[in-house]
Amino acid sequence: MKNFDYHNPTRLVFGKDTIKDIGKFVSEYGDKKVLLLYGKGSIFKNGVYDEVVQSLDKYGIDYVEMSGVQPNPVLSKVRETVDFMKKENVDAIVAVGGGSVLDTSKIAAASFYYDGDPWDFYEKKVFPEKALPIYGVLTISATGSEMNSGGVITNEEEKKKWGWGSKYTYPRLSIVDPSIQKTLPVNQTVNGAVDTLTHVFEEYFDGTKDTLMADEFAEGIIRTTMETVKVLIKDPNDYEARANLAWAATLALNGLNGLGRRGDWASHGIEHSISAYYDIAHAEGLAMVMPAWMKFVYKEDVDKFARFGEKIFGITGEDKEEVALKAIEAYKSFLKEIGAPVALSERNIGEDKIDVMAKNALLRGPLGGLKKLEEEDVYKILMLAR
Amino acid sequence: MKNFDYHNPTRLVFGKDTIKDIGKFVSEYGDKKVLLLYGKGSIFKNGVYDEVVQSLDKYGIDYVEMSGVQPNPVLSKVRETVDFMKKENVDAIVAVGGGSVLDTSKIAAASFYYDGDPWDFYEKKVFPEKALPIYGVLTISATGSEMNSGGVITNEEEKKKWGWGSKYTYPRLSIVDPSIQKTLPVNQTVNGAVDTLTHVFEEYFDGTKDTLMADEFAEGIIRTTMETVKVLIKDPNDYEARANLAWAATLALNGLNGLGRRGDWASHGIEHSISAYYDIAHAEGLAMVMPAWMKFVYKEDVDKFARFGEKIFGITGEDKEEVALKAIEAYKSFLKEIGAPVALSERNIGEDKIDVMAKNALLRGPLGGLKKLEEEDVYKILMLAR
Repeated sequence: MKNFDYHNPTRLVFGKDTIKDIGKFVSEYGDKKVLLLYGKGSIFKNGVYDEVVQSLDKYGIDYVEMSGVQPNPVLSKVRETVDFMKKENVDAIVAVGGGSVLDTSKIAAASFYYDGDPWDFYEKKVFPEKALPIYGVLTISATGSEMNSGGVITNEEEKKKWGWGSKYTYPRLSIVDPSIQKTLPVNQTVNGAVDTLTHVFEEYFDGTKDTLMADEFAEGIIRTTMETVKVLIKDPNDYEARANLAWAATLALNGLNGLGRRGDWASHGIEHSISAYYDIAHAEGLAMVMPAWMKFVYKEDVDKFARFGEKIFGITGEDKEEVALKAIEAYKSFLKEIGAPVALSERNIGEDKIDVMAKNALLRGPLGGLKKLEEEDVYKILMLAR
Repeated sequence: MKNFDYHNPTRLVFGKDTIKDIGKFVSEYGDKKVLLLYGKGSIFKNGVYDEVVQSLDKYGIDYVEMSGVQPNPVLSKVRETVDFMKKENVDAIVAVGGGSVLDTSKIAAASFYYDGDPWDFYEKKVFPEKALPIYGVLTISATGSEMNSGGVITNEEEKKKWGWGSKYTYPRLSIVDPSIQKTLPVNQTVNGAVDTLTHVFEEYFDGTKDTLMADEFAEGIIRTTMETVKVLIKDPNDYEARANLAWAATLALNGLNGLGRRGDWASHGIEHSISAYYDIAHAEGLAMVMPAWMKFVYKEDVDKFARFGEKIFGITGEDKEEVALKAIEAYKSFLKEIGAPVALSERNIGEDKIDVMAKNALLRGPLGGLKKLEEEDVYKILMLAR
């Protein structure tokens, strides 16, 4: 177990009928005028937009709107948002949406106090000293962005899909009302679950030893996610499954799961280079990459993959390597069962750009914690994922 | 699963050789003069005192000292501490010790800004509007006080051992270095583990339904605690077991484990009335009370006690009540195995004050969440605990 330094200042308001209080919270913290940031309009269909603006109105919060944040959010939208925020001189951001809106809000909140280009933060040319407060209203549980400081943005021109965060970009407060997620299309619920599972795996399979408490924590999230997503595929209206999945998704990436570990995160790095070139959902890319990554690296820590097999799938046996391999297959079968794609070909991605994607994935240096991956390793993993 | 509103602002610095940075942290947050609060002197033996004062000196932090905080900390010491803090006009408290020192620091930090008696907060005659910052340096993992806002103080004159906390009394930062706990007497390590387990049980057995994620979280802490304390009884120097036990203890009562639940806390209420009359360690009282409480209430939620049997002890069977009863016996056997007392008689507590203690436990009204306990119920539980 490694040393750690943990500080997560986000206040999390969780449960049914909690969105109606957003105006009250903003008012309590003293903000008068906010940017209402959202995506492509699903919040008009599920009633969340109305609930938010009614609450802002009720508590006398002035707001201006910026819509159109897309999945795999892009830098051009960040720039547009920042310019608008500066012009309107808002006090805070109310980010209503999923990971893409939350992620956009973070770089925008920091860029509000910076005269240069937002991408400079991603390139580590500058470091923030403050950021506008962010209030999150989550509409899909997946990324954990509602309770962490990070955000992934795609620089479309340069084909760079990168992550960034700072201690100033934790949301001040986030509201998670699982009940509003009942109207999500099934594939989006599935994507959220796959994203959650992959976040846990990225820490769990990192090679750090003697992490019993962290392993137990991770395995609890994994089992909860796998069980609840299957319930929700059959019955999207099951509130208790929604609530447990939502809580699992937040716990998977609010920082706790990684404490005492180094982390791996190679699969995310590889996926980001896929969705920099192809218009697929982030979680679809993760579903394709993760089992291939597992096959490529499991020999680095056979004991851990065997433990995974036993604790998650109940696979036991004398031969740990056999258990490990069965576990990887069991995970792939689970992904198929819930309808996630497990091969690039399922989204019509051929071999032609695999070399380019492998090169792109290495732009910020080698990937991985369990096994350090160079360009040729990423190439092999992508070939395994065909 | 119930709604919740969670905000834990404590920064946790965890791991080997972290205490030497206490002065740096205090300095970074801008505090110049602190109260160094500690207990009866164990920190002189294990070197922690020297490490703390050297670090404070190194970073130019002025400090005054208050020692002598006792296990089951008392109100008279709180009053003495608050008077001293006001006289010395300190900026913050550096609390070096276990739960008793941390708990004392919280009520002292709030009372610094109050002219009346500290006990007024416990009686809810007044509510704090601010508190001095607290920096914790933990010397024994047990109460979770290093990362929560609460504290239990005994009003010796009135025989009231009560809990209190506020959103202002979370430590600003706590350091947990598990390596310094290797010098603890075995019984203190055991007491820490029992305290940890009981904190989890107080939320786990509360009758709230559909709490899969929270159950998985709780069970992970329980298994980790049970496994690591047994390792440490054999080898107190096992750092990895210390670190995992320490992390489990913090997670057990930093608020996360109770999210989505109502909680029960009757066993703590009953124990507090035992240690208000008898000089026993808090955890010893909990070891005596909890199995008796379990036997008294298990019929309220047979399914949960059966789940406990299966997930913690691997007990299975068709008859859930049988599994539940076996699980309670298995927990009692575990307590005996690690050397914890499971009967009042083991600490020479007879029947003579059981009626008085039952009355005392009800001073603030009925106890419990799973089953509401009146005075006669507490009497019966204490009789079962003989």
